[in-house]
Amino acid sequence: MDTNVLHNLSYGLYIISACNGAFLNAQIANVVFQITSNPPKVAASINKENLTYSFIKKSKEFAVSILEESTPLGFIGKFGFKSGRETDKFKDVNFKRLSSGCPIVLDNAICYFSAEVVEEFDCGSHVLFLARLSETGFIKTGRLMTYEYYHNVKHGTTPQAAPTFLREEIVRKGQKAVQRYCCRVCNYVYNPEAADPDNGIKPNTAFEGLPDNWVCPVCGAGKGQFEKE
Amino acid sequence: MDTNVLHNLSYGLYIISACNGAFLNAQIANVVFQITSNPPKVAASINKENLTYSFIKKSKEFAVSILEESTPLGFIGKFGFKSGRETDKFKDVNFKRLSSGCPIVLDNAICYFSAEVVEEFDCGSHVLFLARLSETGFIKTGRLMTYEYYHNVKHGTTPQAAPTFLREEIVRKGQKAVQRYCCRVCNYVYNPEAADPDNGIKPNTAFEGLPDNWVCPVCGAGKGQFEKE
Repeated sequence: MDTNVLHNLSYGLYIISACNGAFLNAQIANVVFQITSNPPKVAASINKENLTYSFIKKSKEFAVSILEESTPLGFIGKFGFKSGRETDKFKDVNFKRLSSGCPIVLDNAICYFSAEVVEEFDCGSHVLFLARLSETGFIKTGRLMTYEYYHNVKHGTTPQAAPTFLREEIVRKGQKAVQRYCCRVCNYVYNPEAADPDNGIKPNTAFEGLPDNWVCPVCGAGKGQFEKE
Repeated sequence: MDTNVLHNLSYGLYIISACNGAFLNAQIANVVFQITSNPPKVAASINKENLTYSFIKKSKEFAVSILEESTPLGFIGKFGFKSGRETDKFKDVNFKRLSSGCPIVLDNAICYFSAEVVEEFDCGSHVLFLARLSETGFIKTGRLMTYEYYHNVKHGTTPQAAPTFLREEIVRKGQKAVQRYCCRVCNYVYNPEAADPDNGIKPNTAFEGLPDNWVCPVCGAGKGQFEKE
């Protein structure tokens, strides 16, 4: 049974946020979708080990910022590959708190909504929170980031806690003749052909040609954390 | 509260199929997604009034064909805007039955999987079926149909039974100066600028210039069923 068929399901890329009093947290998610139209309800899948999960479990509220296509990898990495237990993810980020108390990220977001949890469905490693829309807003117009764009154009990677973590990074290995390097921390693959234009590195720059202070655009790890594929 | 923010969530376009003995049925769906990676489980949202729902409820099995970008509107309309109670949706369609008995559509599909239901979550008008992957297969390579492409490029519409039915067709009205016509049966909007190239109608063909035997590319209604927006 080839589970790679599941890579052909379509998703967007979102920041899900929640709070525990004054303590704010947020994480990247791709499994967010509308379930009913009347009343409008959404569902979001969250790994039980994530800090956001414990906040939502307690407060019964969460908020979602819908990201635009041009969102830098580093911004996604900040929310997707770090834990709110160790870092303040909202430091140096523009955000506002909604009436529910949940913070929504304004940087790189097209629009947002908050939702009140009406039911929790236990799915094993993840819980699906079914929630009723409570507040909405538009920030700007722009193209939406899709999961496909994140992977195929931005060369982003998937954390192990994500519902859609599969063998995709492994599958992608060895497709190109040019030497690529893989980040041992987050599995980001440095592809010399695409390079890292978000951070001023032009296409067709070999890994060896990167400046010494270059860091992984996703998780911030140094060059020494990379190894040949 | 502007529920139009929900139009910025991303989806694909799928055919979900099921069977009741020799009786086969299938429908279009956009809310299908992976929920856990180990073991790989997926969830699909189905309206309780749909025939597919009653089949899945009974057999605890369903299959999903993942559609390609070039899928004609009429093919989507056949599965999305007709009821299996009145028509045999598999007539003139290439399909095969999987070991579960579920039929999967081969036309316009990139790949498929079948899944065994392990849990049902009641969400009001819809039920989310959580299911464990049981069989998979690839049919061809190609670009995937996204919900955004279906709406913005193919000018497809959303049936009222869909979880994502909202005011989107209403929102879209009045955006263009050129006279557009709306199908009273399925809400498809004939846009003269885009016209209906799937059926040989070139861009910039006024509604009045359509041949008398032209029918709605989504639901098959005649020209007389259309009215000015």
